[in-house]
Amino acid sequence: MSRGYNFSSGPAALPESVLAQARDEMLEWRGARASVMEISHRGKDFIALAEESERDLRALMSVPASHKILFLQGGATQHFAQIPMNFAAGRTADYVVTGSWGQKAAKEAKPSCTVRIAGSSEAAGFLKLPDGYAFDPSAAYVHVTTNETIGGVELHVLPSTGDVPIVADMSSNILSRPIDVSRYGIIYAGAQKNIGASGLVVMIVREDLLARCPPTLPNILNYSAHVKEGSMLNTPNTFGWYLASLVFKWLANQGGVERMGEINGAKAKVLYDYIDGSGFYSNPIDRACRSRMNVPFRLADEALDGKFLAESEAAGLLALKGHRSVGGMRASIYNAMPVEGVKALIDFMKDFAKRQG
Amino acid sequence: MSRGYNFSSGPAALPESVLAQARDEMLEWRGARASVMEISHRGKDFIALAEESERDLRALMSVPASHKILFLQGGATQHFAQIPMNFAAGRTADYVVTGSWGQKAAKEAKPSCTVRIAGSSEAAGFLKLPDGYAFDPSAAYVHVTTNETIGGVELHVLPSTGDVPIVADMSSNILSRPIDVSRYGIIYAGAQKNIGASGLVVMIVREDLLARCPPTLPNILNYSAHVKEGSMLNTPNTFGWYLASLVFKWLANQGGVERMGEINGAKAKVLYDYIDGSGFYSNPIDRACRSRMNVPFRLADEALDGKFLAESEAAGLLALKGHRSVGGMRASIYNAMPVEGVKALIDFMKDFAKRQG
Repeated sequence: MSRGYNFSSGPAALPESVLAQARDEMLEWRGARASVMEISHRGKDFIALAEESERDLRALMSVPASHKILFLQGGATQHFAQIPMNFAAGRTADYVVTGSWGQKAAKEAKPSCTVRIAGSSEAAGFLKLPDGYAFDPSAAYVHVTTNETIGGVELHVLPSTGDVPIVADMSSNILSRPIDVSRYGIIYAGAQKNIGASGLVVMIVREDLLARCPPTLPNILNYSAHVKEGSMLNTPNTFGWYLASLVFKWLANQGGVERMGEINGAKAKVLYDYIDGSGFYSNPIDRACRSRMNVPFRLADEALDGKFLAESEAAGLLALKGHRSVGGMRASIYNAMPVEGVKALIDFMKDFAKRQG
Repeated sequence: MSRGYNFSSGPAALPESVLAQARDEMLEWRGARASVMEISHRGKDFIALAEESERDLRALMSVPASHKILFLQGGATQHFAQIPMNFAAGRTADYVVTGSWGQKAAKEAKPSCTVRIAGSSEAAGFLKLPDGYAFDPSAAYVHVTTNETIGGVELHVLPSTGDVPIVADMSSNILSRPIDVSRYGIIYAGAQKNIGASGLVVMIVREDLLARCPPTLPNILNYSAHVKEGSMLNTPNTFGWYLASLVFKWLANQGGVERMGEINGAKAKVLYDYIDGSGFYSNPIDRACRSRMNVPFRLADEALDGKFLAESEAAGLLALKGHRSVGGMRASIYNAMPVEGVKALIDFMKDFAKRQG
């Protein structure tokens, strides 16, 4: 057995060199004479890691001084609920819904604010972007999901929301290309796709918005309190944070998000081009919003799905089964998926199609 | 450099064999051809791990069928806030406060319920247990902290609360000896002391209490929803869960919590006996509630603290500095600390005391 090309939608593939370093340091990290998991988050060694990782992420994403960075827990889903508690309590918030995650975010917000759907492509089966947006200029924020992993829909152009801050669930495409962070009020992302392992959430928040966090909240649910304590209001997920720090170094060594954007663009293009021209596979998403991260595709005959999955798995192409709600296949090709993995997938797809004659 | 004896209060030492297994499986876990961190939590491989770990924990602690087991995130601190939201909304809850963590639990509960202090040893500097308890028979629950890591106070005898369920923060002494789980409404514990790595919380909850969880809560903050989804309402901390599963196997191999209770009792006894008889070191806690997990001690002259710490660190006895709020030293001797580590500490303490002439 050896490692396969892993197309899992998340928890997803990590760079092999990152895993190898985590392996090599598992019993003794730096000079700690202990694992990074076994030391106090308040000791100088871990504080150094925390500060360095924040600097590295700030550099990678060109995060301006106006924005704070948090390393939290709970998965993006917890923050679906916690963001409206902090930033829209008693107010209206606009939600743009382009897939399942946007739907969930809106649902989890309902106990804490008035949720207004400012645009949705649900009626179109989430196969394209909403036809337009109707924003409320008095909304607390506009929530968007920049990439929908299940449908395979990416928001390539950020809507114009005037003075209303944009809150973006960027779980599945953060760090996949350059973005202008200053255009966002809040960016948040579960780590298990493009940052590291599950159990860690990275949040980038414009400092002036923290004045909204209600002091009546329990401290642990108050983002302002987390910022004040440098993400150490309580014990953070230290191993998750450590892994993220290794991924940030890896990204810098790859050439940063500019280079990742080029590679990700090329990986997606070659796969979509093959699918579109194959006459055997198909992708139903409007080209204007096809995801560079998650490429769902169907076979000409869905009776062949099981065979495709068994044979691809045997060929070392892992986790290609599509989400049960859309069926078919899905290739998730985040930062850690090398070009060679996409080429191997296409070679397999070609061969499989030919063999069905 | 090599691994030291690690007396960190948390994140704390893990069994070396567990770390070695995690190292060896880092790039390829079982037959997954990927790390355990890189696979879907909803796939059959991870589901098997999740089910096995629950069975193992249920066996180790003899958890009765009346109680459900959850693997969550957020640290115990998040659950300080979330437990009253779920189980005491609009009601009064009794809190027993025997140290800093009990104080924090009570503080985080205040936004969600009426907090009543049913017993506190704060006036006695948390050096002993409260003189008595005044429980409210109509309280939603009685919250206790079974071990206080900072003061070094352990609740060796559970108070009688009649029909009022006991909610226990067992973060620092779970799995350290046999307990009767049926006496508890809820047991919860951050994993980073006796279970595994930070970023994971284990909760054991009596099923009938779940009827209290308000349906108006966001789903992700509702324990009933987590039980319904088998701790997979969202992506769990999969690596943390995996590490916990390895620790459960290790504990079973050690002889289970009965044997750990004997070892932990012996480790604590030899250390307290030495301190009490040394004429140089002292522990201020009432013997009726001294912690078997965290042993704070002072030197005869606190001007020697820095020297003690530098020399102990150089001798491979790590992280002995006491919490800043109480000063002095603290030896945390959880399950993963072998008897040999405590002996090495005592040998060093003897030698150090002698050298101060």
